[in-house]
Amino acid sequence: MKLHRFAVLGLFALAAGSAPADEGMWLLTSPPRDTLKSKYNFEPTDQWLQHMQRSAVRVGMGGSGSIVSPDGLVMTNHHVGLGAISKLSTKEKDLLKNGFYAPTRDAELKCPDTEIRMLWETKDVTDRVNAAATPGMSAAEAGVTRRKAISQIEKECQADAGYRCQVVTLYQGAKYHLYRYKVFTDVRLVFSPEEVVGSFGGDTDNFEFPRHSLDVTFFRLYENGKPYKPEHYLRWSPAGAKEGETVFVFGHPGRTRRLYTADHLKFLRDVELPERLERLWRNEVKLQGFAGKNAENARTAQPDIRGVSNGRKVYTGLLAGLEDPALMQAKLADEAQLRSFIEHDQANAVQWAAAFDAIAAAERDYRAFYNEKATIDAVVGGSRLLNRAFEIVQLTDELQKPSSDRLREYSDPSLPSLYLRLYSPEPLPEALEIEKLTQSLSLLAERLGGDHPLVVKVLAGKSPRARAEQCVRGTKLADPAARKALVESGAGKTSQDPMIVLAAIFDPRSRELRKMYEDKVESVERDAYAKLAAARFARSGESVYPDATGTLRMSFGTVQGVARDNTPAFTTIGGLFARQDERAGEAEFTLPPRWIEAKGKLNLATPYNFTSDCDIIGGNSGSPTVNTQGEVVGLIFDGNVYSLTGDVVYNGADGRSISVDSRGIVEALRKVYSADVLADELTAR
Amino acid sequence: MKLHRFAVLGLFALAAGSAPADEGMWLLTSPPRDTLKSKYNFEPTDQWLQHMQRSAVRVGMGGSGSIVSPDGLVMTNHHVGLGAISKLSTKEKDLLKNGFYAPTRDAELKCPDTEIRMLWETKDVTDRVNAAATPGMSAAEAGVTRRKAISQIEKECQADAGYRCQVVTLYQGAKYHLYRYKVFTDVRLVFSPEEVVGSFGGDTDNFEFPRHSLDVTFFRLYENGKPYKPEHYLRWSPAGAKEGETVFVFGHPGRTRRLYTADHLKFLRDVELPERLERLWRNEVKLQGFAGKNAENARTAQPDIRGVSNGRKVYTGLLAGLEDPALMQAKLADEAQLRSFIEHDQANAVQWAAAFDAIAAAERDYRAFYNEKATIDAVVGGSRLLNRAFEIVQLTDELQKPSSDRLREYSDPSLPSLYLRLYSPEPLPEALEIEKLTQSLSLLAERLGGDHPLVVKVLAGKSPRARAEQCVRGTKLADPAARKALVESGAGKTSQDPMIVLAAIFDPRSRELRKMYEDKVESVERDAYAKLAAARFARSGESVYPDATGTLRMSFGTVQGVARDNTPAFTTIGGLFARQDERAGEAEFTLPPRWIEAKGKLNLATPYNFTSDCDIIGGNSGSPTVNTQGEVVGLIFDGNVYSLTGDVVYNGADGRSISVDSRGIVEALRKVYSADVLADELTAR
Repeated sequence: MKLHRFAVLGLFALAAGSAPADEGMWLLTSPPRDTLKSKYNFEPTDQWLQHMQRSAVRVGMGGSGSIVSPDGLVMTNHHVGLGAISKLSTKEKDLLKNGFYAPTRDAELKCPDTEIRMLWETKDVTDRVNAAATPGMSAAEAGVTRRKAISQIEKECQADAGYRCQVVTLYQGAKYHLYRYKVFTDVRLVFSPEEVVGSFGGDTDNFEFPRHSLDVTFFRLYENGKPYKPEHYLRWSPAGAKEGETVFVFGHPGRTRRLYTADHLKFLRDVELPERLERLWRNEVKLQGFAGKNAENARTAQPDIRGVSNGRKVYTGLLAGLEDPALMQAKLADEAQLRSFIEHDQANAVQWAAAFDAIAAAERDYRAFYNEKATIDAVVGGSRLLNRAFEIVQLTDELQKPSSDRLREYSDPSLPSLYLRLYSPEPLPEALEIEKLTQSLSLLAERLGGDHPLVVKVLAGKSPRARAEQCVRGTKLADPAARKALVESGAGKTSQDPMIVLAAIFDPRSRELRKMYEDKVESVERDAYAKLAAARFARSGESVYPDATGTLRMSFGTVQGVARDNTPAFTTIGGLFARQDERAGEAEFTLPPRWIEAKGKLNLATPYNFTSDCDIIGGNSGSPTVNTQGEVVGLIFDGNVYSLTGDVVYNGADGRSISVDSRGIVEALRKVYSADVLADELTAR
Repeated sequence: MKLHRFAVLGLFALAAGSAPADEGMWLLTSPPRDTLKSKYNFEPTDQWLQHMQRSAVRVGMGGSGSIVSPDGLVMTNHHVGLGAISKLSTKEKDLLKNGFYAPTRDAELKCPDTEIRMLWETKDVTDRVNAAATPGMSAAEAGVTRRKAISQIEKECQADAGYRCQVVTLYQGAKYHLYRYKVFTDVRLVFSPEEVVGSFGGDTDNFEFPRHSLDVTFFRLYENGKPYKPEHYLRWSPAGAKEGETVFVFGHPGRTRRLYTADHLKFLRDVELPERLERLWRNEVKLQGFAGKNAENARTAQPDIRGVSNGRKVYTGLLAGLEDPALMQAKLADEAQLRSFIEHDQANAVQWAAAFDAIAAAERDYRAFYNEKATIDAVVGGSRLLNRAFEIVQLTDELQKPSSDRLREYSDPSLPSLYLRLYSPEPLPEALEIEKLTQSLSLLAERLGGDHPLVVKVLAGKSPRARAEQCVRGTKLADPAARKALVESGAGKTSQDPMIVLAAIFDPRSRELRKMYEDKVESVERDAYAKLAAARFARSGESVYPDATGTLRMSFGTVQGVARDNTPAFTTIGGLFARQDERAGEAEFTLPPRWIEAKGKLNLATPYNFTSDCDIIGGNSGSPTVNTQGEVVGLIFDGNVYSLTGDVVYNGADGRSISVDSRGIVEALRKVYSADVLADELTAR
């Protein structure tokens, strides 16, 4: 960690205005052509960009992937497919633990609720969104107006079934782009390794390098019951990547906050992240305790445990960065430069400078109700059954309104995705639901106090566990048909189903808090950040990339290790076996028997994982790593510890993204999993 | 947990005034003779009580034990001896993991800083403590005056070396007793099993029953370099306990809060426990991450991990109880009874009733600074090195004052124990100290905010980790001689040792917060609780036992299981092997090879653990369980989950204390550990 500190000190380079050349999560509509040309002598053509755009996909709500065969094969991470694989598993047939391979199309398994999206086309709608807001409006009024305009634009765009439209807010509010997606909901599982292979080294090796994970899963897209035949798909590189080579990553980074003001970052450091981490530590300990009770608990809780421990590690690294005065000083120095530029712009100095204060004021306002809002959001988002009930309660009200007046997630264009989730036949194990609801209800009591009126009403004279048991055992909502019937009958608020009754208690206060957030915080921030972005554009032209928003971006960089640590760029399959020996006897480092048996056949020198300085963040998991020909050389699945501050600042010196090497994937498919059919499909030219 | 709820509902019996007969942690000077006679037909003689008093010991700061041979052998729990065993361990010779047995006196290992105390005699000094406080004083002034009087009394009592005096506050302030202890500091390790045997089933089986733990360790007391020859020691029962038998527990329960008012319990529920649990969840996750890195980290962090996960489980159970409206209603009903009694006492009604409001007001005041105080206390109590430095800084100031003006832990009578701890040659592994200090410093930043002046001063421009590395690597305080030199030179505040410099930053604010707590909370509570205790005495005579205070108490009850669950009272050694098979492959359930080899020789029907309804709490660990003859039949080491609300209410219906069976101990010593010499010493008549 000494190195970490030096790494952060290196950020002063950023403050001095010379951003590292490989920084950025770029829109494919405005790639940094000058940098690519000058540094890599690479000039992406529009055809190349279009090819990459339609080969890359978003998997579910928060992952990336790519189409890698003419028969609609999709490559992503095992940990991105985890939820789907878990939903296909049972006590008797545990695909998560044992892996899965379908040698024929017939054997492929349809996922209950996995949605895969491909970005079809985009359009700038900034002027139309902003036109609705007139200069005399308050920030809150302007916010309402913009949200309505966005909803209207999305609705108008929604032409064909099989497509979805979404307006994306860029630069925290400076630009609005309309994205039109082609959507696949018939997604089938083709291959996944055993979890211990996919996440080899578990929590210990997570965000470390050298790493040795085969974090890969293959799905196949179907359309009208047949494998999808894509116009665009990625070819497999015969050679693979080599050290020093230029590579690109196309994926869906979830969220960054690099354009935040220092005051906003302090809110993140002092309020948001401590609150988030408190919940993650709490959940992790409680879920581990639940999982320890028996094997079935362990199986059903595994996806939650993975999610929680991963999030905990991400936010721990981010908070450690924000707690390092060097990082905050670098941010302040950067901000001072921008403020200085602003002072010299006669026309805009006053309104641009006021934007800093407006953001600081919004965060002060937010502090007053942040704890309550975050807690209630966490509670209604905890137990799956309560979450479904909450969605039904809100949906029932929202469907009474015109689409553009609704909360955004219930607008007409949002409904197909909502219904896919809401009516999913996914298993909802009773013991896990009781546990998670108990955790949520006691969180509410801990955070708000046992005598708080909402707590008293929610618990209804029972202990958190007794109330959770009552609601989970008494509800009919575990049956998707019952959920559908409630929505379609319009009885989603008047039902006496105990989970609906419970959810309805949260609804009014949840809406109030959301309105307070939208009016007092979000709308103010958008106004202010739009101004600061204008200042940045005025200073640096369009060479500013927008913060990540869960939408398609391109990163680029060089295959390399970490020089200071003497960490190599590549690990090998031989290193995997060596790591197992180092941690002999530990479950998370113990390879399945088929690996041990295959050891003699495997070429142990085959590259297995590698690092590059491509700029990625959570959500990029599953992104293809490609060479300048657009051929697959790897599969993004992780970053190293030094990259964990990437949410707020790019660390080009030591931060690295980690890919599974394409050669490692094929070697394992052929020699360990006897999956030559799949390997042939991937590598066919 | 359904049963748990019913159990709590059963507490209404308490509110109705018919306290379960087996409730209570009684002073040996006022045992409930009527109950013992009427329910058990047992009349303890003064000789019997004196014999038990001088056979029972307190082990270290928070455990119990008993003298069990004429050669000063002390029996306690493995988990009570854990710290000492860990301090005797090295990377090469890991006694915690592998166990230890000294077949001869020469082979016994001297513990670096273990203090064992035997209660020699007691005296009521209530009048003298209260005499100093005059009626015109404020609660804060009266508190200061009483603390001085206590210090003076302790100092006067301190006659011989080898004895220590302590004034114990009983009934939250209604009575003060002077306790005089005989103290042993030459304590040697004789036997401890492998940790996996001592805590079989780990966190999963902790606070569960059926249990299968050989949670036993034997030390020997030495005086003048020779084994101590006690006047009193406990004999081993030849027969052991049987279901339905009356048993007694003599030990040092740490703290209960059963006499708290409802408002005070709400403070516990809404403020104190959530804060405590937040830290425990945080520590547990972080320590597990540290331990996961390598085997040496795992070894050195093990005692901390055990402590944290145990505390987390205790407080989770307690909070769950307090979050159950049924428990709070029972408490309120009990309080309503007391209030009603008070209303009818013409002479005292007004001042007694005011006591309730005074406590509520004190807790309201406490809320304003609780978070800051708890955080700073946790920080200076986290890293061992920072804690030592903090003690040196405070001690240096305190030694300038007369003993009775000092903070209590630095008064003359407290110094021998302080020095034993402060100059201990215990190992202080650098990696663990850096980790714990990093955790503490980032906790400070998370809780107070990164721009808080104390945080800025403490971090001194560095990240928490960089600052921790600087202080741990730069300090000389890992050497006990350096600590001693600093204290003796009087340079403990002016030293430029980085850990001293760091500690000194905390000192002023820590003192301010302590003073605020003493004046605004503690003193007010003592005044008020003294009044409420007077009301209780007026209502119920002396049949009220004081809340636990870490001092010697007697509990009693019946060997029994939990009827509702059909949980038997006993487990057997055969059950231990069966439990291992049930959880095959899990490290915490895997017996060492010597157990597997001994299986054929062992009598598998030998009782191994058993339960009774004796009223215990944390601190009772290591207490002897004896029959009416005062013979050892077991060794307290745990309670079941239903007992976890014991801090605030006794649950006689389902709450059970768990003992290792004396027969299981001897069977294992002889057949598994070939420790016949030790077994003979125990069982000699």
